[in-house]
Order: sequence, then C-alpha cells, then structure tokens
Amino acid sequence: MWACFKGERASEIVERDDGYFDASLVGPQMYFSEYEDWHLIEKQAMKFVKGRVLDIGCGAGRHSLHLQKKGFDVLGIDSSPIAIKICRLRGLKKAEVRPIEDVNFKPDSFDTIIMMGNNFGLFGSFEKARKLLKKFLGMTSGNGLIVASTRDPYKTVNPDHLEYHRLNREKGRMGGQVRIRVRFRKTVGKWFDYVMVSKKEMEEILNGTGWQTREFIDSDDSEYVAIIGKGYNP
Amino acid sequence: MWACFKGERASEIVERDDGYFDASLVGPQMYFSEYEDWHLIEKQAMKFVKGRVLDIGCGAGRHSLHLQKKGFDVLGIDSSPIAIKICRLRGLKKAEVRPIEDVNFKPDSFDTIIMMGNNFGLFGSFEKARKLLKKFLGMTSGNGLIVASTRDPYKTVNPDHLEYHRLNREKGRMGGQVRIRVRFRKTVGKWFDYVMVSKKEMEEILNGTGWQTREFIDSDDSEYVAIIGKGYNP
Repeated sequence: MWACFKGERASEIVERDDGYFDASLVGPQMYFSEYEDWHLIEKQAMKFVKGRVLDIGCGAGRHSLHLQKKGFDVLGIDSSPIAIKICRLRGLKKAEVRPIEDVNFKPDSFDTIIMMGNNFGLFGSFEKARKLLKKFLGMTSGNGLIVASTRDPYKTVNPDHLEYHRLNREKGRMGGQVRIRVRFRKTVGKWFDYVMVSKKEMEEILNGTGWQTREFIDSDDSEYVAIIGKGYNP
Repeated sequence: MWACFKGERASEIVERDDGYFDASLVGPQMYFSEYEDWHLIEKQAMKFVKGRVLDIGCGAGRHSLHLQKKGFDVLGIDSSPIAIKICRLRGLKKAEVRPIEDVNFKPDSFDTIIMMGNNFGLFGSFEKARKLLKKFLGMTSGNGLIVASTRDPYKTVNPDHLEYHRLNREKGRMGGQVRIRVRFRKTVGKWFDYVMVSKKEMEEILNGTGWQTREFIDSDDSEYVAIIGKGYNP
C-alpha cells in the first residue's frame, strides 16, 4: 500500500495455507480508488450510512475519506500502522491503529459500523464473529447499523476452492474460512484467518447476537453487501 | 495461459530464489493481446522481420499469428505444450513444442529469428547465450536477423533488485540473471534461469559469435529491442 501511495507499480499476492497463490489483478491501487470508480454495490451501501461512523479495516481510507467529505463524523481503524499513516496523510482526521480484536468503545459511540471491501471477513471465524458482534451491540446507538460486504464462497467452480471448503468442514471450520498471508516483494505477512460467508451462514452467525439482516445488496458476481440492524434482543 | 484462454480471470506470479514475489499487473491476458494494443517498440520491431521466421518462446502466439496474417512463413516454438496447443487452436499453422535448448534446424532454415516479450532472457546465461547464438548462425540465411527484446536490469532503484545484482556478481553470474519459477493457483513451475541485459552486456555476449547489433529501439522505460545482424565472421 505504501509503494502504491508513493506511485510505484505494486502487486499484492495472497498465499493460502494449501499452497494456492493469487494476485489481485487490480492490485492495491483499488484501495485508493475514488467513489466514482467503486462497484455499484459499494455506492449503494453508502446510502445506508448515518451519524457517527466506525470504519473497520479502513485501509488507505477510501470509504472514510468519502464519508468525511460528505460531512460524517468518521473514525477509521486498521491493524496496519502504515495504512493509518496513509489515511492521515490523505487527510482523514480520525484514524487509529487498532485491530478488530481490540475494538472496544464506550456505549453508544457510533451509529454505523462499516466493514467494506469484504471486511466482514475480518471476523475470521464463526465464534469470533459472534463475540465481536455482541461487543458492537453496546458500542452503537439504539438504531445502530452494520454495513458489511462479503463474498459468497460457494459461488465458484474452481476445484481448488471446492476442495478447500471440504477440508475446512472436516476440521470443523466454516467452508469459506481461509488461512492466508500477504506477500509483497520480499516481505511476508503473518498468517491470519479470514472468512467469507453465504447469506444463510451470515444469518446463522447473527442469530442470537442482537443483530439481524435487514437488506442485501447483490452484485453480478459473488460479492454482496448486508445491511444489518438491531433485532429484538432475545 | 490456459485459464486465460478459457476466459477465466488469471494472474501469473513470479517467485525469485531470494524470496521476492511479483505479479504481472496485466497478467497473462497480455500474451493474447492484439497488434493494436502492443507497445510501440514491439510494433516497430515487426518492421524488421523478413522471410521465413522462427518465433522462440512464442507463448500464446501473438507475434506468430500477426506475422502469419501478414503473409510470413512462421514457425512458433515454445517449451510449454499448453502454449503450443493454444497456438494451434488460435490458428497458427506451424507450432512445435521445443525449448530453446533444443533449437537445431538445418542450415539456412530461417531469415529472421524473433525473441519478443523479453525473450532474449531465454538465453539464460552468458555462456548459454553464446553457445546458442553460434547455433543460430548456421540455421539462418546469409543476411539473417535476430529481433530480440529485453530489459536493462540496472534501470531500477528497487533495493531488493540492486542487492540481487550484487549477489549475482559475487557468484560470477551476470547482474541481471534471475532464477525464477512461476506460480499459478496451486501449481508451481520448475526453477529456471532468465537473463536481462544492458546494451553493453548484449554487445559482450555477441562479441565473437558472428552476430552484432545493428540498431536499438528504445522505449520510455527499461525495455528495448535489439536488431541483431550477421557481422564479419572472425
């Protein structure tokens, strides 16, 4: 991301723990894209944002900066100090180095939590997602919202992915969990868990957390956005 | 390349033996590009082609197919059976699975040998380049030409590359030699040597082989094309 910020040609390579390598064709440039160039579902998702916003995994700040410009009070957080440095250099007023695991704000701190760019995946696993969602409940206002994007992992015919889903289930993991690390030039990141979920799996995760899906925004591929509101507390 | 031929999104990841990873931003799509979309220096290079053509490392056949359409008698060779399969499916009449090491044709078989898309790199090393160039001398007509493209490896400020050049020299290798392998999804290719040379180094390689550079076609980056003709035999 830093190389990209400096205007260098940069590619981001993702290594999965079964030896599957992939590189984003758009590359980290995408993290710097302007509203005009976003996918339609991301633009549509922004219409649901209200009040004080927490942007989890804000990256280079494309969503935070857009919302700040629109007059929203936005805090961007990211586990990467370089990402937060870039956000500040790009003009984001409130930006903090903080991984999702350490998200713990006072009651009623936010009206909307956004997890865009497949950042629902940062929940990592079924149990971790539920634990964090319960924390998010207190941090948000009475009619608080989560606006999150993910990818239905089962909309694929790639045999390597289908095999990976099967092995996941054998281990008691969700089909769409991936243990990955990012490579850039000679740098290798730490392994971490990321999760992609179908709509049905998302409902299962939310069930009993106090959150429920209100609406889905579909794209022409496997990516979708979920608008998640507060349900009746059980 | 096969995934790309089938219309799938595909990225090609190159791993160097110092742990440096890179992915082409354009991806293997480039191997299928049409003349109109080529870099200017590649278009200019085609103007030097004459007579019977040997295309070494023809890939998906973009140069061979263009020249065949222009009426040239072209043989495309590649070490990859899938590449040759694709060339045939795309309509290339003469295509053979053959690595550069096995290039050995009868005297006066070709008027032009093309090594485009940085394929001068297939020479692999100083000694191997000289050995093959001497072989190419007999295979070509009296006024035979080699049209080859490469990249000046020293036109970089990337510290990882500069360090790699230094380590190469310590081992008695050319600065711009790289030992690499290609990864695609879960597939890992064999390690092989590839070489990038400055103009001065190219002259040193050619010196005494019977070949000499006639002309260089420069680009706005480190890539260039050399037009190599027969010199006075020593």
